[in-house]
This record gives sequence, structure tokens and C-alpha cells, in this order.
Amino acid sequence: MAVMERIKTAIVGASGYSGEQLVRLLLRHPGVELVALTSRQEAGRAVSEVMPKFRGWPGAEALCFIEPDPARLRELAVATAFLALPHGVAAEIALPLLSAGMTVIDLSADFRLEDAAVYREFYDHDHPAPEWLSEAVYGLPEVHADRIKAARLIASPGCYPTSVILPLVPLLRQRLIDPGTITTCAMSGVSGAGRKASVPLLFAECNESVRAYSVPKHRHLSEIEQELSRAAGEQVRITFTTHLVPVTAGICTTTYASLRPGVTAARVTEVMTGLYESARFVRLLGEGGCPDTKNVVGTNFIDIGWAVDDRTGRVILLSAEDNLIKGAAGQAIQSFLLS
Amino acid sequence: MAVMERIKTAIVGASGYSGEQLVRLLLRHPGVELVALTSRQEAGRAVSEVMPKFRGWPGAEALCFIEPDPARLRELAVATAFLALPHGVAAEIALPLLSAGMTVIDLSADFRLEDAAVYREFYDHDHPAPEWLSEAVYGLPEVHADRIKAARLIASPGCYPTSVILPLVPLLRQRLIDPGTITTCAMSGVSGAGRKASVPLLFAECNESVRAYSVPKHRHLSEIEQELSRAAGEQVRITFTTHLVPVTAGICTTTYASLRPGVTAARVTEVMTGLYESARFVRLLGEGGCPDTKNVVGTNFIDIGWAVDDRTGRVILLSAEDNLIKGAAGQAIQSFLLS
Amino acid sequence: MAVMERIKTAIVGASGYSGEQLVRLLLRHPGVELVALTSRQEAGRAVSEVMPKFRGWPGAEALCFIEPDPARLRELAVATAFLALPHGVAAEIALPLLSAGMTVIDLSADFRLEDAAVYREFYDHDHPAPEWLSEAVYGLPEVHADRIKAARLIASPGCYPTSVILPLVPLLRQRLIDPGTITTCAMSGVSGAGRKASVPLLFAECNESVRAYSVPKHRHLSEIEQELSRAAGEQVRITFTTHLVPVTAGICTTTYASLRPGVTAARVTEVMTGLYESARFVRLLGEGGCPDTKNVVGTNFIDIGWAVDDRTGRVILLSAEDNLIKGAAGQAIQSFLLS
Amino acid sequence: MAVMERIKTAIVGASGYSGEQLVRLLLRHPGVELVALTSRQEAGRAVSEVMPKFRGWPGAEALCFIEPDPARLRELAVATAFLALPHGVAAEIALPLLSAGMTVIDLSADFRLEDAAVYREFYDHDHPAPEWLSEAVYGLPEVHADRIKAARLIASPGCYPTSVILPLVPLLRQRLIDPGTITTCAMSGVSGAGRKASVPLLFAECNESVRAYSVPKHRHLSEIEQELSRAAGEQVRITFTTHLVPVTAGICTTTYASLRPGVTAARVTEVMTGLYESARFVRLLGEGGCPDTKNVVGTNFIDIGWAVDDRTGRVILLSAEDNLIKGAAGQAIQSFLLS
Repeated sequence: MAVMERIKTAIVGASGYSGEQLVRLLLRHPGVELVALTSRQEAGRAVSEVMPKFRGWPGAEALCFIEPDPARLRELAVATAFLALPHGVAAEIALPLLSAGMTVIDLSADFRLEDAAVYREFYDHDHPAPEWLSEAVYGLPEVHADRIKAARLIASPGCYPTSVILPLVPLLRQRLIDPGTITTCAMSGVSGAGRKASVPLLFAECNESVRAYSVPKHRHLSEIEQELSRAAGEQVRITFTTHLVPVTAGICTTTYASLRPGVTAARVTEVMTGLYESARFVRLLGEGGCPDTKNVVGTNFIDIGWAVDDRTGRVILLSAEDNLIKGAAGQAIQSFLLS
Repeated sequence: MAVMERIKTAIVGASGYSGEQLVRLLLRHPGVELVALTSRQEAGRAVSEVMPKFRGWPGAEALCFIEPDPARLRELAVATAFLALPHGVAAEIALPLLSAGMTVIDLSADFRLEDAAVYREFYDHDHPAPEWLSEAVYGLPEVHADRIKAARLIASPGCYPTSVILPLVPLLRQRLIDPGTITTCAMSGVSGAGRKASVPLLFAECNESVRAYSVPKHRHLSEIEQELSRAAGEQVRITFTTHLVPVTAGICTTTYASLRPGVTAARVTEVMTGLYESARFVRLLGEGGCPDTKNVVGTNFIDIGWAVDDRTGRVILLSAEDNLIKGAAGQAIQSFLLS
Repeated sequence: MAVMERIKTAIVGASGYSGEQLVRLLLRHPGVELVALTSRQEAGRAVSEVMPKFRGWPGAEALCFIEPDPARLRELAVATAFLALPHGVAAEIALPLLSAGMTVIDLSADFRLEDAAVYREFYDHDHPAPEWLSEAVYGLPEVHADRIKAARLIASPGCYPTSVILPLVPLLRQRLIDPGTITTCAMSGVSGAGRKASVPLLFAECNESVRAYSVPKHRHLSEIEQELSRAAGEQVRITFTTHLVPVTAGICTTTYASLRPGVTAARVTEVMTGLYESARFVRLLGEGGCPDTKNVVGTNFIDIGWAVDDRTGRVILLSAEDNLIKGAAGQAIQSFLLS
Repeated sequence: MAVMERIKTAIVGASGYSGEQLVRLLLRHPGVELVALTSRQEAGRAVSEVMPKFRGWPGAEALCFIEPDPARLRELAVATAFLALPHGVAAEIALPLLSAGMTVIDLSADFRLEDAAVYREFYDHDHPAPEWLSEAVYGLPEVHADRIKAARLIASPGCYPTSVILPLVPLLRQRLIDPGTITTCAMSGVSGAGRKASVPLLFAECNESVRAYSVPKHRHLSEIEQELSRAAGEQVRITFTTHLVPVTAGICTTTYASLRPGVTAARVTEVMTGLYESARFVRLLGEGGCPDTKNVVGTNFIDIGWAVDDRTGRVILLSAEDNLIKGAAGQAIQSFLLS
């Protein structure tokens, strides 16, 4: 990325929680010029009015929300557009932006699945642009860096999937675990549900509350299984349960799988280190390390620990990330910096 | 229990969080006279001073903490003593109380295990009174009511174990699941760690934090496996992971197990209902029901829901309870009212 | 209240947070039969479905929400109707219920002000039934018990006003403070804003957030000043600031006023004790006592402490209550039990 | 500050919450080389072990805690030492560091008061080094920039005082308010109490709790009155009440004062703007603006809003800051960058 010339970027659908993190990260990045933020609801308002935490930030004072108009983004010479839109809305605007020659990094689920049939199974309707599914690259930089570099349409992973896939990939690739035995339990902060008026997301409903939801078939399961299957070289099906916990941000995920005979804790450590030692945003806490969301919230790190339960022959994988950063905006920017 | 004559009770070690719940529940109970509260640290202070929430409660104003002296409890004609003491301390005082003819309901882990060898494995020292292990009854009223009625020493279950054991017992007894496939993920509020000065339990450490701990071998695993083995009629080993989440009270537990071939969701429902339909403190939310800790905190209920994941052949068991009530003080009183 | 014959009651607008507390308290009360709950949104649904925490409660299983129809409430022979409706909606339904001979206890602000002009100033429209303003009694039992006993229309006080008025009334009545010097700072949990879908009330907005709002003229100021003026025997105007803090329930209020010359801390204590010593739900913590919301949440108590700042000649009044109980449902039931 | 040559700094007492923020901010600052962190308790341990959030940070991996030994800091050629020690401990180590020629920026209260008698009144013992009180400069950069530039010993202000003093200084300097009428109500997150094992600071004690404390004479009152008196040109005494609210970080302060006759809201705005328009870290929200701690936590900003209550002739001043940054570590670095 040239230092001298800043890349013009836009955030489409910038008024939600992921959008806010994109604003924060792109405003700070010296190689980027943030030329437009769009929001149907907030069009015409200053960023610092809608998001008062950006008052006084260099670059923020002049920014106003505009309507999500592809022609306007083209006039502004946007090179890369980040889409932080609800599922289903993203695909609609992605196509004209791609046609206009922009790189699109989509934070929604619209282009994450390769198989339109799986999309229909999990999202209950036909995919609006199936011809783009094969072109889109799943934007998990630690796993698909080479493909991301060449991509024009990057489907940035979901928050839960990032926390489930990253710890499992090395073990599946090296065939250390039995793919039929994976169960995973994930706990997310409430910002993961988005910034929308909804009684179940009220403070007085979520505070002092812990509960599972979307059992047994959360939509993110589809992309998780796609990526695990790719790593394993065979079809993988897992049981995945999501829980809402009273923190604003952060995902803590615990995953269980049976080790193949003879696999030791030392071998697990070796394989983890082999894949992630030089991954800047993966922090390996080692055997026995228990990640804590408070150590990653506000950062693009994912912390990973593991333990072997000798009594049952299972490995326990522990991961923690900020759902809005490593699980959304930060990871999207990681892909952007590769591309 | 006679209505006319109130049973004299004492709480030994009443200054912690479970002790506080015992005070609350026993003060309110018309069949009980709470004649003594002991606490080494608080001896001499009024209850309403140490626990200001009891100011103005009938019966609380006159209560003062006293030293934990068995002779004094005998003088006060205590019939039942509840022990809410740290692990290890309970056994010491239980013996003289039992010798003095009192019924002892111990909320600590000291008498929960039948096998002194398992005790040594999990608690790292020899059991101080192994001769009492066979006499103690594991105080889970929905499972061991008959034995509790006859017991003089009741070992009230741990908070986590209650939430894990109750949903599994009917399925293990009826052989609906493969006992070798059980994994369980439990999330607890911070009061579960007790009322002790400790940096990791500070508000500023636990707030906005979600993390696993005691991986892979939490001490409660020992009593869980004991009870699951009893229900299954064979040795059961499971993988059990505990997490700290930022709520004051409440445990939310999610358990996975492979169904035996041909077992349907309807059969799971039938078996659950069969065991718990008339259990006053078990609320079955049915297939697809997701318990929420906020609906049980402050009560002695455990809410249980379940789902069958057809794609993987697993059952997902969901439970929620108040760790200090159904998981401690309330359950102890349930046993007391049976005995 | 006759023990043998239970009084038939209804809750109109029972699906909000105050309504939920009314359900809880009335279900438990042996002298009350709760014959109807109304809610436009939830009509037709079982209480235990809408409010899962009441599953398994005696009396709750049979209760369904119905439409708020005065004729239906008359058919059910309702003697007392509690209105837990939004401001403005309550007056509409109160009138037919009063005409039908019921006692109405209104938790909204609709009948709290005696002066229709003040109502218009603070609520920005004409009062819909000014002829009832003189008949309504402000339902603060510690202050207006005699009038409440005789009332057919009780305007139950707001949550903030209760916490401000109760500590000040004895000092104003006895002329211990200069009424022109009162400033008050109140902090409320988020349930005070009601159970309505709203972005600013989302968990992710309110968590880790403390902020003032409705500065400088919160609507509750009108009823506060009415009652303080009544106690002082002269027109009182105060400065009152409200803050939102991240707790579900609870109000903590700190009030400052200049003591008249020569007034000592002992005299403040004497006057406080004089008025409240036998008030069952007022707990006086004495000079230097600092109330904590956690000691009153879930109860109908208001805790009051005070301190004299000799350096400035001011008294500092400290109070804490549960905004939904002593500040709403519990206080309404206190009035009901008087009437 | 020269860009080419980085200034060698040390943090003495780095293991607390303010220390952690100093580590974070100094590690990131390009003009600073952080050469030593001291901590009696943590000496010998790596920073990334004690504070896992710094794992993987450039510069953090090599840092270990050392003993707080002045000779060692001299050997390391430390130019500026930040002291993040408890009150009383700071003075002891400050003297040898000053003697060794270092600049000392003390975050404790030890050197904030000019008058040793006031120190004795509020801290209950004689000042250990009264000869340094006249040399120390109160490190509030928006108010004392010139003196800070020349200082060798900077007493960085307390968290509460910063939030109270900054909004009042312009109004007192311009004589807009009556100094005898100031009352102030401040709410702080729990990190303000420090990282020490203490039952009242446990999560289960502070969560769902709001309470006043240290009423009526919090120690910070002494430095507040010193600075307000300086601004007013006369002795000022105020009433100041502190509250603990369940957030990790953040202070929200609301201050009341009577305006002098004829002072308008427009004049208040003019005077605020006059002093702070170009203050980089003061964000003026204008008349009616209500600061929210969530917009300043994690930053060095203090947000200030105000309102005039025409009915009572008072001004209401509203401020919010991060207690650990603008209220501690960030402000200390602001002074450092001036000096």
C-alpha cells in the first residue's frame, strides 16, 4: 500500500456498531482517506452528532452521512467500499459498486457461502446474486491470505465463525481430531445483535441475564461448516450453540473435539504454533491458557488457548475476540490491507 | 414438619453469599426458628449491620453473629445446622454437631463424594473423616428424596453440579444418550466464587469480561461424574468447562450428548416430563425452550429446555438456576424440609 | 382488609416493568384475587408466556392477558384497578372505571398534579379530565395516609419524586432548611424508562454509560415541587437533575440544602426519626448512613441517611429505593392496603 | 520534544489501573522510550504476563517489572518518572528521584496541596516533605500550562477534581457564579478505587449497586477547593458528594451554582468557549449538551455541557471523563508533553 497516496474508502451502512468501528479504524489509518459514510436514517447528519465519541477527531469533523447512492460513491472516486449492512441489503448495493470497478468488502453474510443451496437452507430464500458466490473470497486473512490478495469481492467472516474456525483449522488440517465429534459453545456480547430498537436487546432485559438462543441451528453454522470442511478435506458437521451474555463487546468460545488416538498435548501445541506463530493478530496463550474477552476487546487480536482432557481424550479449545473488531471491522480492514 | 412448633436451626458460616441466602430464606420460613448465626469474622456484630438488606426484617433485628462454637449451638437446642463454610472447614465442625445429635446440612463439598480416593484425586489431600462419607446423602431432592428423608448428614450439591446433573439424569436412566459423548459448558455469575477479598474477583476485573477457568478439571467434576454414573449404572466421564460471566448470580449450562440410534425429540420430552412433571422446583420449558438466568435468579427454580440437532444426532440440554439458591441455600432448605 | 374474602383486583397495562412488579406482588398477597391483566399488545397470551419468571407460580398459570375493556372488568367484579399505563393513556381508561364504581390506583403521572396549569406547563397539553384533579389523592402513604384511606382515585407518585420528597418533608415541615437552596441529583436504573423498543435504551448503549438527561426540567419536577411546597407551606422551587446509570432497578438520590442558622445534625436526626420511626417501609440509616440501592432492590423499602456538612452549613440527604417497587408498584399496593 | 531522540521514562508503581493506562499510552507514544516499570509485588514478572492485554504489543514483550529502586532508575538514565503509587508512598520515592535530577510526575495526592495544614486536615498526618509543596505544580494543563512547562515536580490532579474544577474555572474567573452556592455530585466507576483486594470492591458487591460514600468530606475536596479558590480569587468552600456506580471506568459529574444577577446562558457559553475553544482535550457540548461517560472512556477527553435553570437562577454544569485517563494517566502525559 503506497504511503504517499491514501486510498479512498467509503463505509456503506455506517451507523451500526460495526460501522462505528470501521469509522474509528479507518479515520486512524494513515494510508486511508475516508471519503464517504452512508446511512439511510442518518443522511445529512454530521458523524460527530450521530457518534459523539468522534467529536474532535481529526478527519471526523468534516464527515457527514450521505444516502447510499452508488453513483455518488463513484463520483467520489471510492476505490474500496466496506459494506456494514444487514443481511440481504448488502448484496443489492454490492453489485453496482462492483460494476463500477470498486473493491467491495462485505461484512454481511451475503457472500460468505459458496453454495447457493446451503444459503437457501440457512437463510430461507434464494440468493439474489448466485453468480458472484464463486468470485467472493471468504475474508479470513490467517487462512485465505493469498486468495484475499487477488479478490475484488471479499466476504468478511461472521463474528462467531471467526472464533470457532481459527482454533480448529490447524487441528483439522493436520488430522489431529475426529471431525464428527466437534461441539462448540459460544458466548457473545450484546452489540453482536446490532443497533436496532428491540425489546429483547434492552438493557433491562439483557443485564443480569445469560441465555442460549437460536438453538440448534444458528445461521452462522453454515459458514463455519463450510470452512471446517475445507480445512478437513471432508464434510464436517458440528453442534454449535450461541449464548447472549451481558457485556457490550466480546466473544468467548469453547470448543470440544475428540483427539485421534495418540495425539498429545505437545502435538496440539506444535500444530497451533506452526500455523499461527507469525500471525500478527493471533495470540497463542499456550496449553492451559484461558483467554479473557477483556484482554482483546478494543483490539484486532484473537487469543487462543487449549487444554487436553486426558480423562476423556478430548481437546478443549478456548478463544476470545472482540466481536466488532476481529469479528467484523478489524478483520475487514486486515483483508483490505492485504488486497 | 409441625406447624405449631418451629424447628430450631443455625447457620454456621453465615457471612458469605450462600449464608446470606440461608438467612433470607430461613427468616421467612414460618416453620423455622433461626436461633444462631456464626461467623468468626463477624462475631458480635448484628446481622442488620453486616447485611444491611435485612434491616427491618421481622426476626433479623435481634440476631447477632456468634463464634462457631458447637457447645453453644447445643445449648441453644439447635436441631438442624446448615454449614455454609469453605471446603475443608465444614468437616471439622460437622463432626461435633453430629455427635451432639443435630442434623447437619453441609453446603460445602466435604461430604459429597462417596469415594475417599476420588476426594483425594480432586481435592489434593486425604479426607478428614472418611467414615462419614458412606453415611452422608447427596442432597439433590429431585433424585434422592427417599434417602434425604432418612439422613442425618446431607451433603448439599454444588451449584454447577445441580445444573449439569438434573437435565442428564432422566436421559441416562432411560439410556437415551451415549454416556461417553457428554460435553458440558457452564457459565456462572461471580457470587459463585464467594465473598472473599481477591483481585480477580474485583468489579473492575470481572465486568466486561468473559473467560473460562479451571480447565480441564474443575473440582465439581468429581461429584458430577459420581451422580451421572449412578444414573447411568456405569462409569461416566465427561468434559466439563466452567466460565465466569459478569452477572452477580445465575448459572446457565449447555450440555451436549449423542442420542442413541432411533431416539427422537418426542422421546426426550417424554422422559424429561416423566421424571420432573411433578417436581415443584423444576420448570420444563419443553423442546426448543431456552432458559434465561434472569427468570430464575432470586428463586429456587431450575429451568430446563432441550433441542435435538438432527444434523448431528445430538441432544442439547439447556438449564438455568440461581447458583446461590437452587445451587446452594434453596436446595439445602428443600432437603431440610424433606428430612 | 378482610382475610376471608379476597379483594378482586385488575392490572390495566400489565406488560411493562411496573406491571410485572404488580403481578408479582398481587399474586403473592393473600388478601387479593388478581382477576384480570390487560395489555393491548399481549392480549390472548398467557402470563407465564409473556413473563416466564411467573411459570409455576400459584395463580399465574391460569392468567391470560385480555384487552383493556372497562365493561369486561366490570363483569369480573373488579373492585380496585391498578393502572400501569403510559402517561396520557391512563386518564382515558380511568374515567369509565371510576364511573363503574371501582377504586383506581393510577401509577402514571396523569392525576398527580392538582393544578391543571402546571400540568400544561410540564406535559405540553391540556389535562384531559381536570375535574378529577381535585379528587385524586397523591398516593405517598407516609405523608398522606389519611387522605389515601378515603380516596377513590389515587395518583401513585413517580419513582424519582418518592426518593426526593420523603427525605425533605420532615425538614421542610419543621423549617430546618431554607427551601430556596435545594438542589438534588438522582440516579436511576434503566427500567425506569420502561419496556419499550428504543435505541438509547439498548444494552450496548446503556452499559458502561453514565449520563444526565432531561436537564434542566424533568417532568417529575412538577410533582416534587407541589409536594415540597405543601410541606413547606410556601412555594418551593428546586433544581433537580436525573441521571441514567447501568443497573436494572434502583434509584439513588442525593439532595443538598442549607440548614437554617443553629440547626444541628442532632436536630435533623430528631426530626427524621419523629416522622418516620414507625413508618414500616422507611429505614433510617442515621447520620452518616449511606444507602445502597442493592439493599433495597426487590423490596418496598426506602433507605434514608443524612450528613451535615459543617464547613458549608448544608445538610446532605441520601436515599435509595427500588424504582419499580417503592417508586411504583409497591407503593401503589401500600396505598391500596390503606384504602 | 525532539522526535529523533526518545525521552527515557519509567513508571513507578505500574501494576495498578492508572499504571496500566500509563503503560498503554507510553508504549504507543513515538517520542517516548519506556525503560522501566516498577512494582514491589510483580518484580521479576513480564508485563505481558501481569497485564495480558499487552501481549504482542511492540515494546511490551521485553519489559519486566523491577523493584522500585531509585539507583537502578538512575542507571537506566530515566529522565522522567511517573509515580502511580498509593497516597503516602509516592512522597518517599519522589525525593531521591528529584535529587537524582529526574522530572517527577506524581499521580498520587502527595504534592497536590500547597498548604501543609490543609494536608494534615484532610489526610490525618503531617506532610512528609512540606518543603516540596511550594515547588510542586498542580498538573492541570488547561489551567496551569505555563507553570507546568517549568516544573520539575508535577502533582497530577485527582480524577474527581479534574471533572469538578475544569467546568467551574471559567465561571469563577469571570465571576459569573456565587462561589458560596456550589454543590457537586460526582459518580465514579469502580476502577477509581484501585486494584486492591477488598470485599466492598468485589463484582458481586458493586454490580447492581449505586451508593454515595465518604460523605461529607472526601479527601479530594481539599484540592478542589484550593483550585476553585485560586480561580475565584477568594476562599471557596463547596459541598461535594461522591458515588460509586457499576461501570469499570468513567466519571460523570453534575455541579450546581447560583448565577450572579443578570448572567445569561449565552454569557455562560461565551465564557466556556473563551477558555476552552482551543483546548485539545476539552470538548464543549454547548448549552443543553449532556456528556455521557461512554463517549470519553478510553480517551483523554473531558466532555462538558451546561444548562441554565431559569426557574431557580442556577447553572448546571455537566462533565464526563475517563477517571484513569483524563483523570489520571492521560492528564499526566499531557503535563509531561508540556514540560
